[in-house]
Amino acid sequence: MERVRCKKLIDKIMSADEAAMFIKNNSIVGTSGFTPSGYPKALPAALARRVENGENIQIDLITGASVGPELDGILAQKGIIRRRYPYQTNPDIRNSINSGKIKYNDIHLSHSAQYLKYGFLGQIDTAIIEAVAITEDGGIVPSTSVGNSNVIVECANKVIVEINTWQPQELEGMHDIYSTSNPPLRKSIPIINVCDRIGTPYIPCNPDKIVAIVFSDITDKTNKVAEIDHNSKLMAENLISFLKAEVNKGRLPKDLLPLQSGVGSVANAVLGGLCSSEFSNLYFYSEVLQDSALDLMDCGKLVSASATSLTISPERLDDFYRNISNYKDKIILRPQEISNNPEIIRKLGVISINTAIEADIYGNVNSTHIMGSKIVNGIGGSGDFARNAYISVFTTQSIALNGRVSSIVPMVSHVDHTEHDVMVLVTENGVADLRGLSPKERAELIIENCAHEDYKKMLWDYYISAKNKTNNSQTPHILREALSWHERYLETGSMK
Amino acid sequence: MERVRCKKLIDKIMSADEAAMFIKNNSIVGTSGFTPSGYPKALPAALARRVENGENIQIDLITGASVGPELDGILAQKGIIRRRYPYQTNPDIRNSINSGKIKYNDIHLSHSAQYLKYGFLGQIDTAIIEAVAITEDGGIVPSTSVGNSNVIVECANKVIVEINTWQPQELEGMHDIYSTSNPPLRKSIPIINVCDRIGTPYIPCNPDKIVAIVFSDITDKTNKVAEIDHNSKLMAENLISFLKAEVNKGRLPKDLLPLQSGVGSVANAVLGGLCSSEFSNLYFYSEVLQDSALDLMDCGKLVSASATSLTISPERLDDFYRNISNYKDKIILRPQEISNNPEIIRKLGVISINTAIEADIYGNVNSTHIMGSKIVNGIGGSGDFARNAYISVFTTQSIALNGRVSSIVPMVSHVDHTEHDVMVLVTENGVADLRGLSPKERAELIIENCAHEDYKKMLWDYYISAKNKTNNSQTPHILREALSWHERYLETGSMK
Repeated sequence: MERVRCKKLIDKIMSADEAAMFIKNNSIVGTSGFTPSGYPKALPAALARRVENGENIQIDLITGASVGPELDGILAQKGIIRRRYPYQTNPDIRNSINSGKIKYNDIHLSHSAQYLKYGFLGQIDTAIIEAVAITEDGGIVPSTSVGNSNVIVECANKVIVEINTWQPQELEGMHDIYSTSNPPLRKSIPIINVCDRIGTPYIPCNPDKIVAIVFSDITDKTNKVAEIDHNSKLMAENLISFLKAEVNKGRLPKDLLPLQSGVGSVANAVLGGLCSSEFSNLYFYSEVLQDSALDLMDCGKLVSASATSLTISPERLDDFYRNISNYKDKIILRPQEISNNPEIIRKLGVISINTAIEADIYGNVNSTHIMGSKIVNGIGGSGDFARNAYISVFTTQSIALNGRVSSIVPMVSHVDHTEHDVMVLVTENGVADLRGLSPKERAELIIENCAHEDYKKMLWDYYISAKNKTNNSQTPHILREALSWHERYLETGSMK
Repeated sequence: MERVRCKKLIDKIMSADEAAMFIKNNSIVGTSGFTPSGYPKALPAALARRVENGENIQIDLITGASVGPELDGILAQKGIIRRRYPYQTNPDIRNSINSGKIKYNDIHLSHSAQYLKYGFLGQIDTAIIEAVAITEDGGIVPSTSVGNSNVIVECANKVIVEINTWQPQELEGMHDIYSTSNPPLRKSIPIINVCDRIGTPYIPCNPDKIVAIVFSDITDKTNKVAEIDHNSKLMAENLISFLKAEVNKGRLPKDLLPLQSGVGSVANAVLGGLCSSEFSNLYFYSEVLQDSALDLMDCGKLVSASATSLTISPERLDDFYRNISNYKDKIILRPQEISNNPEIIRKLGVISINTAIEADIYGNVNSTHIMGSKIVNGIGGSGDFARNAYISVFTTQSIALNGRVSSIVPMVSHVDHTEHDVMVLVTENGVADLRGLSPKERAELIIENCAHEDYKKMLWDYYISAKNKTNNSQTPHILREALSWHERYLETGSMK
């Protein structure tokens, strides 16, 4: 009971099955959860039981970003999700999306908050928010992520709080909740330094809006972090050499500028590479903090880190929770509208490092689709950061599927980041610094520095024929051949 | 002499031919000029004469945006430009770019300023700035555009001022010059309302940096505005109906939010359509003000307009200059780093309206390239606005070249605005409101509401086969056919 400090809410405590009755068929449900952290876990199971018992329930599900199997997984399996925004990574839901069963719109993560506040996605009926506590006044203290939770609480008709006792109460104090007004009443966001606190440590909520409080005790299903492989190490080295050279040219301060990194093992490895670099006094202004952030704090190189989600690997989590007091004053968890806000990213001069599925010779990046048609995850926050960064870097291994796929192609099969937003491309083979270059100069550099040896000649052949056939035009393409590598893969299983 | 009020600079007045001697071979030259307004006109001619007289001169040319024939035209003809940033519209330079003679990198216009300040494009040697006057302290009062002029003056080794006596001195007082610091010292930009003035009415400049002052008396070569044709009228009506419906749904205030519009006759016609609408108390926070802004001020509907350039048609210009006092306190001209700044666009909640060359059925927009390879102009500021807008609208006529080209295609041949950044598509046939829709829902709406009758069946055929062949995946494409319409056009002169 110490977790529910608002006395008038004590009588709202009930079972998940009782609370799940508040969710209406054909309604919009918004939940906490970001990069599977801090999402509700007991309520979705109870909702699924209603369907197992014969009810027909269909909902639109809006979250911060990706959530775990207890939410996206089970609801997709039971056919409960009709629409899904703004990001997902769960295999069950991905399959339902790629077979047309679920309507999915992946949205820039910073935009998703204002889409809700502007009313573009309809009226949220029920909010389900995982929390570690409720304050005396009904304020909701989030757990391992903030995401869109504050906006969902603000916009929803009613709120269900799921208090997860597995999440330590010491998380309280880490969050900084601030919400922008809608135009024309919006003001500047008063963050000037990474560690500025501008809001409250809880999500403000009128207690009358809270219709149910449910207790759970279920772990976040964060992803394992793979061992750092040879290629990830090379990518980290290439990136660090590039950053060093920028400092030497006077184009970056010696302690760099705040860093952002995408999510995943490679991103984690690349950031982790900073541990053994000469850089220190680092700051992260990112979306997600992975194990590498803790490593960099442990070795004294990371001063402060701002994000909207903590996604610490299962292996590392116990240690983190045991020593949380060592990290607490170095970490700020913000709403994704703020962690990913273009105003702040541009003001702070963030160096953004995101992962590409494939890049083309002119510097366009695909980060969402396989062979043009099938979505993997979604654009997430990569566009928020890449577009507004001081320097936007994309990393990818030069080949995939044991070399049957080249990650450098004549034309990407789907564009998420245009040639205008990709400044630097890094693979295990090298770096292509594309700033200020014409498309043809970019092509020559990308092929030479980034592509895999097995595909270099094919890329040069395409590029040179395209130049000849288009009379050396600005961005030479042979449209009949531009996507032929992908076609060949679909037909033969290899781009070769 | 009254235009040069800084006494110590009087002896820097010289002929254009003398001043042109300050320009070095192999140097970077930055000039004023934006959407052919306020660019230097006498200096480039003098530079061209040096080349006619046998000198070999090659420069990198950086401007605000497009400039007229006296700058881009003549220098391209004489082969003087080696590299060009960040935007152009001149036929001579376009041909040189599309035949590989000039290296061109089109850059988001708001990014171009920071690229210069961060040092990403190299050291500017000479700035050439068209002005209407120089203040007592050496401050440069720009003429009809600000563009990157303040940043170019800030970064250049030396400055040449071209005082154009054709430009009325009454322009003084219209400008508001503010420059951001580089990270990590950058602050919030204190604009909260469209008409907030936050800077100086001149470009601050140490007079010792000014090496030459030249007088000229040459008109801006702004573009004629075409008569409003039937389709432009329909597009304007469609857009206004959409905006009315948004107000009725409570998703926009009744006086709308600040408007931005791209440049050109169609954009001008679409904005002009507001004159006969029920909307009033309008504000523009835009990049360029065309005749439509004056029309809306004349009919009392436009309260205030902020931009970086005035591009008034030749037919309208005399009248504007005669009555400039009626308009002066309603217009603010800002640096393009500010007029196009994501922080302010998002803060104010700008409604952006930009022009597409083509859009695909999933909502991706091409605004730069013809048939994938040849560039037309460049991305300009469309990305700055579309990405950060409250609502981002793209307009295009459904067909081009008398119907031989469909502006709605299965897959665009070049992507400048991804599916994530295009909220509403408007053609003469109707409106597709894409917000919150899955790619397949978008396709159905775009084909049904926006495409031309002559191409609807072909688009449905492609879309349905793609759905079937990809098992109804997220974004169905048949890669072999996706660009076949463009191929057919290149081979037969028609997409049909």
